[in-house]
Amino acid sequence: MIIVMENGASDAQIEGVVKKIKEFGLDANVSRGTERTVIGAIGDERKLDQEMIDALPGVENSMHIVKPYKIVAREWHKENTVIDIKGVPLGGKQIQIIGGPCSVETQAQMEQSAKFVKAAGCRLMRGGAFKPRTSPYAFQGKGVEGLDIFRKAADQQGLPIVTELMDVRMLDTFLEYNVDVIQIGTRNMQNFDLLKEVGKISTPVILKRGMSATISEWLMAAEYIAAGGNHNIIFCERGIRTYETYYRNVLDVTAIPVLKKETHLPVIVDPSHAGGKAWMVPALSRAAIAAGADGLLVEMHPKPCEAWCDADQALNPEELKQLMGELGGIAQVIGRSI
Amino acid sequence: MIIVMENGASDAQIEGVVKKIKEFGLDANVSRGTERTVIGAIGDERKLDQEMIDALPGVENSMHIVKPYKIVAREWHKENTVIDIKGVPLGGKQIQIIGGPCSVETQAQMEQSAKFVKAAGCRLMRGGAFKPRTSPYAFQGKGVEGLDIFRKAADQQGLPIVTELMDVRMLDTFLEYNVDVIQIGTRNMQNFDLLKEVGKISTPVILKRGMSATISEWLMAAEYIAAGGNHNIIFCERGIRTYETYYRNVLDVTAIPVLKKETHLPVIVDPSHAGGKAWMVPALSRAAIAAGADGLLVEMHPKPCEAWCDADQALNPEELKQLMGELGGIAQVIGRSI
Amino acid sequence: MIIVMENGASDAQIEGVVKKIKEFGLDANVSRGTERTVIGAIGDERKLDQEMIDALPGVENSMHIVKPYKIVAREWHKENTVIDIKGVPLGGKQIQIIGGPCSVETQAQMEQSAKFVKAAGCRLMRGGAFKPRTSPYAFQGKGVEGLDIFRKAADQQGLPIVTELMDVRMLDTFLEYNVDVIQIGTRNMQNFDLLKEVGKISTPVILKRGMSATISEWLMAAEYIAAGGNHNIIFCERGIRTYETYYRNVLDVTAIPVLKKETHLPVIVDPSHAGGKAWMVPALSRAAIAAGADGLLVEMHPKPCEAWCDADQALNPEELKQLMGELGGIAQVIGRSI
Amino acid sequence: MIIVMENGASDAQIEGVVKKIKEFGLDANVSRGTERTVIGAIGDERKLDQEMIDALPGVENSMHIVKPYKIVAREWHKENTVIDIKGVPLGGKQIQIIGGPCSVETQAQMEQSAKFVKAAGCRLMRGGAFKPRTSPYAFQGKGVEGLDIFRKAADQQGLPIVTELMDVRMLDTFLEYNVDVIQIGTRNMQNFDLLKEVGKISTPVILKRGMSATISEWLMAAEYIAAGGNHNIIFCERGIRTYETYYRNVLDVTAIPVLKKETHLPVIVDPSHAGGKAWMVPALSRAAIAAGADGLLVEMHPKPCEAWCDADQALNPEELKQLMGELGGIAQVIGRSI
Repeated sequence: MIIVMENGASDAQIEGVVKKIKEFGLDANVSRGTERTVIGAIGDERKLDQEMIDALPGVENSMHIVKPYKIVAREWHKENTVIDIKGVPLGGKQIQIIGGPCSVETQAQMEQSAKFVKAAGCRLMRGGAFKPRTSPYAFQGKGVEGLDIFRKAADQQGLPIVTELMDVRMLDTFLEYNVDVIQIGTRNMQNFDLLKEVGKISTPVILKRGMSATISEWLMAAEYIAAGGNHNIIFCERGIRTYETYYRNVLDVTAIPVLKKETHLPVIVDPSHAGGKAWMVPALSRAAIAAGADGLLVEMHPKPCEAWCDADQALNPEELKQLMGELGGIAQVIGRSI
Repeated sequence: MIIVMENGASDAQIEGVVKKIKEFGLDANVSRGTERTVIGAIGDERKLDQEMIDALPGVENSMHIVKPYKIVAREWHKENTVIDIKGVPLGGKQIQIIGGPCSVETQAQMEQSAKFVKAAGCRLMRGGAFKPRTSPYAFQGKGVEGLDIFRKAADQQGLPIVTELMDVRMLDTFLEYNVDVIQIGTRNMQNFDLLKEVGKISTPVILKRGMSATISEWLMAAEYIAAGGNHNIIFCERGIRTYETYYRNVLDVTAIPVLKKETHLPVIVDPSHAGGKAWMVPALSRAAIAAGADGLLVEMHPKPCEAWCDADQALNPEELKQLMGELGGIAQVIGRSI
Repeated sequence: MIIVMENGASDAQIEGVVKKIKEFGLDANVSRGTERTVIGAIGDERKLDQEMIDALPGVENSMHIVKPYKIVAREWHKENTVIDIKGVPLGGKQIQIIGGPCSVETQAQMEQSAKFVKAAGCRLMRGGAFKPRTSPYAFQGKGVEGLDIFRKAADQQGLPIVTELMDVRMLDTFLEYNVDVIQIGTRNMQNFDLLKEVGKISTPVILKRGMSATISEWLMAAEYIAAGGNHNIIFCERGIRTYETYYRNVLDVTAIPVLKKETHLPVIVDPSHAGGKAWMVPALSRAAIAAGADGLLVEMHPKPCEAWCDADQALNPEELKQLMGELGGIAQVIGRSI
Repeated sequence: MIIVMENGASDAQIEGVVKKIKEFGLDANVSRGTERTVIGAIGDERKLDQEMIDALPGVENSMHIVKPYKIVAREWHKENTVIDIKGVPLGGKQIQIIGGPCSVETQAQMEQSAKFVKAAGCRLMRGGAFKPRTSPYAFQGKGVEGLDIFRKAADQQGLPIVTELMDVRMLDTFLEYNVDVIQIGTRNMQNFDLLKEVGKISTPVILKRGMSATISEWLMAAEYIAAGGNHNIIFCERGIRTYETYYRNVLDVTAIPVLKKETHLPVIVDPSHAGGKAWMVPALSRAAIAAGADGLLVEMHPKPCEAWCDADQALNPEELKQLMGELGGIAQVIGRSI
């Protein structure tokens, strides 16, 4: 850690900082510049609490040198991690498109969906049984019944399932239904107790980015899961909140190459929630794959106009199929496949 | 709800929208303008799902006319709600300053804190036993032991306590320790399962604004609690996330008059977390009270430089006392008291 | 325009709004709903001033139905506009990559740059003679001498030039040097006097998006140019300001399909300024083309480490060449060419 | 400047950075930590171009230690600067409320306004003759005729005038009309040619914050004016752009104490443009004064419902008068006067 002292900081103040650094077991290196004194803390700086240092008299500001995340960092694990989801690899050369409806509605709707997802060439299926809704008066999902419907429909096509866990008390039920990938939604990215619980199991976890989470906070949220022992973590960019009102969120494509540099874990993108409109999905999907994403979560509904939730962002089966073709072409250009 | 059709929408498309509106039990009023057709849905529009309407062919966009929140809305409850916290009124003419340290550290620290809080003229005390920390490697709070320490220290001074609940499984323990006000933190504002649980009890709840929550999402989060039966809800503005990096968050003072207009429930402000630096706290506290806040959550630590968490945003006892004086003056100008 | 009255608005207030609408020469249609009265203003709503309506007693809010932009809107001009830049088409099937250094430095640097730009397959060249710099103490560009250097260097390779105009008093000089495309920078997107002046000539104008401009404000800024008579306008997305600090801006790829829907004018992207780091440029460039951009503004410097400005975002000649290959592949997938 | 090298940077890379630092005439201090090497550049770091350093091989990132602004910085000028505006002091103990309409409309409207402004106890008057409007089809201000109307009306009451300059070619006209304070609007905060021109005169300048300008960019924009020789600069906070849509902007009160710490120049606030609604103005005005602002720019119109521009944010004369009373009370609490 580098600590910059205020212009005119006294010797006693400098001494105070050096003393505090040593209390934490690190060494201090003092350089007196023409306008400021700078102190370097040498050793394992994760032991130092930046806020405590900043509160010391005479300190202007401080900067971490070492990244605060460790297990998820590419710095300590150079190769890409490829996660095995019931035989489907995620994070390798092959790109995975995870298709399916926003919500589980009925057995028929899920069976139809599974058929179309499979037919389009997807190897994984998504669907929500528990739905985080802004309003307490809106449809909250089918719950456990929805898990049952989803499991059966997906099994008919041999598709592993991805579904969202909101409440820590439901984890055992998710394990009972052999949910193949647990999704942690954007509103729960920093629900630390939930992260700690999924850290104790080995089921792969999709960690969606918080609505306005920084890259660093997101990596640290993943570090919570990893610190518990579960290293099967998949980052999912889903758009961030900005001042723009034309679309729901701004898909942050820059996050894709940045995450691929910072972490060895797979990175996927949700183009459906990002834009919020079905007509934006193909362009955003192509952009995500072109930027290096390892996969997509795409909403598809057999009859979008009749969907119970987020209807206007779902593709219909035909549109999904066509999109898969385009994505295959782009994948090839960058040396990958769909 | 007002539905605007695309330029050139066909009669069949207009008919389709009218039909859908009627399926939900509302009436439709079609006005054909020079460039667009506009359809008004007349009746209880909370029954209509905006996303389903937007997905219909030919629809350009739609607008809710009625606010989606009801129990928390001032529209349906004109007078201010005054919440009684063990005899201390919040939301009335008297303003409440809730002082105390960020974290519970030791029995001695909490007893000292309680003494100073009381001496400064505060009637409620704050302190965290469970701490949401960005890093899994940082101090996570003293947990249940912290609740015990806090309860005892506050009882010595007869101060009701305010503390954060993060995990739904801890609610019973909070009730056992007779926590007087449960705080829902910024990261959990849309942890809907947690909101539903605190909706089932009657303990007052401070609902902090999510890091980038809109006023409307925040009111809807409160509506989750209210819909369960607990109407003792206190909104707490704590700064929002913006592009500015000089300070941690931007304290949104405009939210104060806006919430006072939209809801009958009390509104308080946390100037300590907003700015992130102790030297900003007095100015932000004065601004909040001048703008009409019903109270403040202010961090005070007996020895800020030794605090275990968020050290550089805590006032020392002397600073808190001085601030109370200034706030008293401002309260008087606007016809209130501290 | 749709005007929603407050719950409980009086008949006199409703009458007042109707009267005001009629004063502006429009007709009014009053619908009384169960909770709110809604008034529709029928006729050319561009004549109505929304702020004046909103200020009338009893009005809760209002909504424009017709888009405020006209000349630039695709609604009134269905086909793509293809702009001819000295024989190079922009906005058609062929995608244009505009390469070159951030700043004009020396004759040798520009001649080398022009050679590399041409060799990489680009048909247009960029370079800044006037530089908007945050600090008054930083290099402000070579000025008129820079225009001269750039013109000569580009002419040797037969490349049309793109360069930024900051000061309205410099326009004549730009015309003297036959600048082929005038760039209006992000800080001047709403410098309305500058927009009006470039509206009076016929030179193509690249209009960069303001740092935090909405899509609608951006289209309206273009409308300023178009209203003056110059319809040769090219939109350039260059990243928007958000809370994220890892990269300089967030490239808003969603803006690409949205603009292609809203306007008939070409849309290009500046991946270099968006991310701010050379290593991010290939991924962002691929994403932009995949999302449907008509071109790119890419920084290339013969020796990036020696550049006088924005050194760490420039590609070297080899990297530009390689990128051109990848972009060609993606263009083909979506039925276009480079 | 502190330069952090990548983990694993080679000796040659470290040597390269040291060499570059020395080329700029500074000294280098190399500390090799356990995980990273850190290089300190010692000397006048304003000479170093951060982007050039960041582009060198092996550099991870760098941090300025010294602030980039100098003339406007409190670090180099400890006392508050009090600007004399025709005998009215701004920046001292006395707070100045600048009242008046958004736009100059007619002679009668301005004379009435001036009378009310004076009667309310304001000592300075505002009014716009040139209006920056999002739409080219909206009222653009009365122009030079407006200046004439304003000058005459204000002179009748002996009020100095504040009005916005948008076009550098109009500066001479502003000087002819003896405009007492020139306002640079939010869209022109980084119109560097305009800043340079007002830097050459001695008329006081109100520099509004750009819609999403950082504190640092804002201080640097002022430094442009100061570097030209004009030190009569007044900062005006007017709300920043965020994701919140309930109000036009978020008034950033935190900027007030922060600017008072960073600069010796006066800081005022525009509560009218911030919120965008007249009913929010009193709360925001009180908050601004309580947080330490040296003055306010408040819109007042004799008949708000008939205003030609921004009607719903103007107070009426009675509301302004009442507000002045409240502000006087708050000023007293913090040892100032109105």
